[in-house]
Amino acid sequence: MGAGAGGAAAVTELSLGGHEVRWWNRNPATIEPFREHGGVRYEGVLGEGVATPASFATDLGSALAGAELAMVCLPSLAHELVAEALVAAQVSCPVLLNPGHTCGALHVANVFRERGVEPPPLVELSTLTYVARKPDASTVRITGAAGRVWAGCLPGSEEALRLAQEIYPAAVAARDVLASSLANVNLVLHTPGAILSAAWVEATGGDFRFYVDSMTPGVARSIDALDRERLAVAAAYDHALPALTEEMAAIGTAEATAAARGDTQAAIAGGEANRLIKAPDSLDHRYYAEDFGYGLVPMLELARIGGVVVPYASALVEVASALRGEPLAASGLTAERLGIAGLDRGGLLELVRGPA
Amino acid sequence: MGAGAGGAAAVTELSLGGHEVRWWNRNPATIEPFREHGGVRYEGVLGEGVATPASFATDLGSALAGAELAMVCLPSLAHELVAEALVAAQVSCPVLLNPGHTCGALHVANVFRERGVEPPPLVELSTLTYVARKPDASTVRITGAAGRVWAGCLPGSEEALRLAQEIYPAAVAARDVLASSLANVNLVLHTPGAILSAAWVEATGGDFRFYVDSMTPGVARSIDALDRERLAVAAAYDHALPALTEEMAAIGTAEATAAARGDTQAAIAGGEANRLIKAPDSLDHRYYAEDFGYGLVPMLELARIGGVVVPYASALVEVASALRGEPLAASGLTAERLGIAGLDRGGLLELVRGPA
Repeated sequence: MGAGAGGAAAVTELSLGGHEVRWWNRNPATIEPFREHGGVRYEGVLGEGVATPASFATDLGSALAGAELAMVCLPSLAHELVAEALVAAQVSCPVLLNPGHTCGALHVANVFRERGVEPPPLVELSTLTYVARKPDASTVRITGAAGRVWAGCLPGSEEALRLAQEIYPAAVAARDVLASSLANVNLVLHTPGAILSAAWVEATGGDFRFYVDSMTPGVARSIDALDRERLAVAAAYDHALPALTEEMAAIGTAEATAAARGDTQAAIAGGEANRLIKAPDSLDHRYYAEDFGYGLVPMLELARIGGVVVPYASALVEVASALRGEPLAASGLTAERLGIAGLDRGGLLELVRGPA
Repeated sequence: MGAGAGGAAAVTELSLGGHEVRWWNRNPATIEPFREHGGVRYEGVLGEGVATPASFATDLGSALAGAELAMVCLPSLAHELVAEALVAAQVSCPVLLNPGHTCGALHVANVFRERGVEPPPLVELSTLTYVARKPDASTVRITGAAGRVWAGCLPGSEEALRLAQEIYPAAVAARDVLASSLANVNLVLHTPGAILSAAWVEATGGDFRFYVDSMTPGVARSIDALDRERLAVAAAYDHALPALTEEMAAIGTAEATAAARGDTQAAIAGGEANRLIKAPDSLDHRYYAEDFGYGLVPMLELARIGGVVVPYASALVEVASALRGEPLAASGLTAERLGIAGLDRGGLLELVRGPA
């Protein structure tokens, strides 16, 4: 599910690996150019060629019939609508969110419950298993395949997690979805730079390299400040997560030597997979539309429930709200939408780990 | 006092106007190039030529002997050291802070009181009476002379305020120093853009026009959000201040037609006086070093005492602190440094207006 760069990369890898892939996208227009070209033209770390899925599905119900796994490769902004489509299609196979980003599994499970339907087995990956961009409508350029991601699942979905690990050996089981959610690097990697280069983005349409040109000392210092808050939230739930650049080095998107010595700027700017990636072309880009409301906002909710003060993360959401003219703390992935409103730390841990 | 662009512009105007100007600067090296050239080479709205002060003073005590007025044309970051120099020189004539920026008079008065000395008559102007830059060490380019500024004074300094108005007919008496302090446009005009273009500043050394290139829709929207908070703080003390672009149009730095129709972006980008001004060359520039800690921080203190919630201003201070790696809310112009810690709204109003 999904015909963006992530979906196209997954179709490529899974088709090349001999899996029967039925490719579905909510908007058929996005998938149509691939169908016209007989598949996905791919280039990069998986080689070059055309990868052909078993079918281009227009109806989700038939695509899911007899499927072993439904894989969702979409921005978290699309999770709500996709979850509704899965409810309507009466999905029964496990669902893998690749990625889940921050609290994707909690969010999708809550969409099912709100509609009175028991959620299917649900697994979320911390980060997309690819670094990929679409240079045109029928091509995917895969500049990196994740060397490690975290896979988290809700209680009862452990079998589905093992299935996800079969497909992605790079996926390491996290103790719970709070760990995989807080290991989403994008909320730390994108948000300070998105704020601190917003005028540059708007003035030039993003005509600079996000991970190189705008990775200045002040941006790196700001990323470090946010990362300390992220790790403190994780620690409140007994998770000792790696720092951002260590995590990126494990994924394969940061330069490992600089990461090891704690040089955030050099580690990020030196990462080959991200090196040529341009800045957002506008304030509607997912670095703004997704990583604040669907990254920092759920992190703020986990911080609140865990009793952790995160002034910098809160400030970034406030600044992004003024910048976009949208109250992100209210329009993003709130505790209500995650189905965790009113829970205390103990209640949340029971929800994500099962009874103690 | 002061040999930056503001001081040089003041020396020019006052010397041309026939005043006896004794020019002093804490660091003699900054004033020396002017002395070598026999005065200030000036160009711009006051014409072109060389303006010669009566003397270049090295000793503040003798410069002040028999003076009618001591005028301080320095960033607020320098107010503390200058106030200490004025205490040491046993100043008795009135002191005019041009500009006072935000809470300059309260700050300087508190420096005197902390040293056990009764403050002299003190007047603050909301904004520097010039738009000026120094293209080289002995030249000032004056691109604007303020059409209106606000002059505020502490109780008992009313005579000094009238003297300031004689020198600057553009100065309109504010009811109290809270009004003049909150009419400082720089804290609204500079801070959102400084944050939202910080990566651009660091990456290029400020190689773009701050009031034109980086005055994007998102930056303008952010300025509006901050301005609403500034006006709410002023309203808590019964001041109905003009909005930023109206104030700038009155000063002469915004395009009046766009300001009148509420188009912040066009009003600021269309202002002739600011049009060619480059962006900050680094994060040490006064837009970062001064306008947060000495603009937003004292505004936050006035907001707190006035019972006004200002989440966006607080967020900007937090983001600037991470960016600079400095806790600005603590290192800036706090209530303690202003001598207003522990006061409630009534107590603050009595301090700045005298007994009701």
